[in-house]
Amino acid sequence: MARKSVNVAVVGATGAVGDEFLRLFELRKYPIADLKLLASERSAGKKVKYLGKEYTVEKLTADSFKGVEHAFFSAGGSISKEFAPAAAKAGAIIIDNTSAFRYEKEIPLVVPEINPEDAFKFGARRIVANPNCTTIVALMPTFPLHKAFGLKRAVMSSYQAISGAGAQAMAELEQQTRDWAAGRPMTIKVAPKQIAFNVIPRIDVIQDNGYTKEEMKFLWEGQKIMHHDSLRATATCVRVPVLRSHSVSLNLEFEKPVTAEQAREILRKAPGVIVQDDPRNEIYPIPLERTMKDDVGVGRIRQDISVPDNKGLCLWAVGDQLAKGAALNAIQIGELLLTKP
Amino acid sequence: MARKSVNVAVVGATGAVGDEFLRLFELRKYPIADLKLLASERSAGKKVKYLGKEYTVEKLTADSFKGVEHAFFSAGGSISKEFAPAAAKAGAIIIDNTSAFRYEKEIPLVVPEINPEDAFKFGARRIVANPNCTTIVALMPTFPLHKAFGLKRAVMSSYQAISGAGAQAMAELEQQTRDWAAGRPMTIKVAPKQIAFNVIPRIDVIQDNGYTKEEMKFLWEGQKIMHHDSLRATATCVRVPVLRSHSVSLNLEFEKPVTAEQAREILRKAPGVIVQDDPRNEIYPIPLERTMKDDVGVGRIRQDISVPDNKGLCLWAVGDQLAKGAALNAIQIGELLLTKP
Repeated sequence: MARKSVNVAVVGATGAVGDEFLRLFELRKYPIADLKLLASERSAGKKVKYLGKEYTVEKLTADSFKGVEHAFFSAGGSISKEFAPAAAKAGAIIIDNTSAFRYEKEIPLVVPEINPEDAFKFGARRIVANPNCTTIVALMPTFPLHKAFGLKRAVMSSYQAISGAGAQAMAELEQQTRDWAAGRPMTIKVAPKQIAFNVIPRIDVIQDNGYTKEEMKFLWEGQKIMHHDSLRATATCVRVPVLRSHSVSLNLEFEKPVTAEQAREILRKAPGVIVQDDPRNEIYPIPLERTMKDDVGVGRIRQDISVPDNKGLCLWAVGDQLAKGAALNAIQIGELLLTKP
Repeated sequence: MARKSVNVAVVGATGAVGDEFLRLFELRKYPIADLKLLASERSAGKKVKYLGKEYTVEKLTADSFKGVEHAFFSAGGSISKEFAPAAAKAGAIIIDNTSAFRYEKEIPLVVPEINPEDAFKFGARRIVANPNCTTIVALMPTFPLHKAFGLKRAVMSSYQAISGAGAQAMAELEQQTRDWAAGRPMTIKVAPKQIAFNVIPRIDVIQDNGYTKEEMKFLWEGQKIMHHDSLRATATCVRVPVLRSHSVSLNLEFEKPVTAEQAREILRKAPGVIVQDDPRNEIYPIPLERTMKDDVGVGRIRQDISVPDNKGLCLWAVGDQLAKGAALNAIQIGELLLTKP
C-alpha cells in the first residue's frame, strides 16, 4: 500500500519509549517526511541517529509543532496536557502515550486490533490516546475471546518489568544486581523498595478504594476499548525483577461455555497474538523471549475449574510493554490514520 | 509449659529445608533428647553443627529409626514412601514434608493454626502430612476470613521463590546473576528456562486438565485442610527471580458481604498472620522482608470491585516458604503432638 509521507514529532525522544519509537519507525518503514525529536531542556542538544542520519534533540516549546502531522507524546501526563493544545493548533494529530486524556469521554482510546474505528474520532482536540501497557497486553488475547463467548468478569494479576517505570528504574535494577554480585550494599532510589531478588505489589498511586491507579486502568480502559460498560474487572499489579516485557495471569468468566481448545483456535487466528501453549514441552510465553517481539504471547490456556458450567478460562499472556504496550501500539494508530486521507 | 523430650530424626538433613529444621529447632527450643541427621549415601558423612555440637550425617536405611519418636521427612516423595513404613514400625510419628501421602483420605494434612485437631489422627500408619508451601502461605490469611464470611471461591496467582525448587535451583539463580554481572553467558540446568531477569509460569508437572500439580495442590489441600469440600479454587503458579519467600495474589469470594476494614480486624487477631497494610506509606509484605520471619504477612487488602454485593476481597500475602511453608509448619505439628501424652 503506497502511503503518503508525514512530518513526525516524538515528544520524550530520549526516554525508554522514545528509543522504541525510533527502532520501530525504522523496522516498519514509517513514512516519515520530516522527523523532529523533542524533549525537556535537560535532554536538548543530545544527538540521536535514525536511518544513518544524525538528529539533534530539540527543546520542546509551544512553537515546536509547525508543520507536524503526527505528534507522538511520551513524556508524562503533565507535558501532554501542557503541549497537546499547541500541537493540535498547529494541525498535528496527537497520539498520546500518557494517561492524561485516556478517561475523557470524547478522546478515543485505541488498540488497533480491537477498536480501530475509534482512531478516526480524534475530533477537534485531535488526540488519540494510547492505552496503558499492562492493559494492552491483557486485552490482546482477552478481546477475541470476549467476542466469541461474552466476557463477564476478568481477574488479573501482573508481573511487570522494571522498564515500565522508566529507563532510570531499569538502570537501578541493573546496578542493584551488579552490587549484589560484587558483594556491595545496594542503593534504592527510583523504586520504593529494592527490586533485585524481590517483588513489589504497589505500582502507581493508591486510590480511595485501595486499588492502585495502575490496577484501576485495567477496568477503566478495558471497558472503554472493548465498548463493554458492564464488564467487571479487578487487577493486582506487581513489579518483578525483569528488565523488559510484562506478564499477566488472567482468570476470565464468560456468558457462554468455552473449552481450552476452542479458545486456542480463536487465539491462533487473532491478529497480534501468538499461541505458545505446550507446557509439557516447556512452551509458554516468557518475558525474556517476548522482548522486542510484536505479538503478545499467550499460553497455559485451560478451563478454569473454579467456574461452574465450563464458563471460565485461565491464561497467561506476555508482551513487550515498550513495544506493543507503548510505541508499537502508538505507531499502529498512526498507520491506521494514514489509511484514510 | 514443660515438655517431655523426644528423639528426633531429620530425613533430608542436608537440603534447603533440612537447614531450616536445625535453625528452627534451636530458635524454638524443640525438646530434643537425641538428634539423628539422615540423608542419601551422597551426603552421608557430612558434618553439621547443632547447638554447638557436631553431628555426622548418616546414610538413611530401614534401620535408621530405632528409638526415634518424631521423624521429619523432607527428601522427596519416593524416599518418604520407601522409608515411612520402617519409621512407623519403629514407633516414630512421621511428619512428612513431601506430597507422598497428602491426598490419602486417612492421612491428616495439617496447618496448626487451621486444623490442629487433625494432627492427632495419625492412625496406624503414624503419618501426619505437611502441606504444600504455597498453599500454606495462601491459606494462613484465607482461613480466618473463611470462618467469618464463608469462602465460596478463591483465585490465586503466585510469585514463587527459586528456593522452592531446592538448594541447587537457588544456586543456579545466584550463578546466573553473577554471570550476567560479569558479562558471561549463563548456564541453564535446574530450572526449565533462565530464571534471572525472567519469570516461568510452569512449576511441577502438567496434569490432564492443563493445570500443573503445584496449582492443583491449592484446591486439593485447601479443601482438605479447611474441611471445605465445596470450595472452588484455581491457581496459576509462577516462578520469579526471588531467592526466598513466596508471594500470592488472592481474589476471594464469600457467602456474606465483607469490608476491607472487617477483614483487617479479623486478620489482626489471626495467629501466625501479620497485617502490613498501609500502601500509601509503602507498607505491604515483600519477600525480602518476610524471609526468616514466622508470620505470613498480608496487605493490599481491599474490596474486590468485580464481585457484586461487596462479597469479594483482594489481598496479597507473603511467607517464608522454607519456614512457615515447610520446616516451621512441620515443627509446629511436632509441638502440637507433644501437648498430648
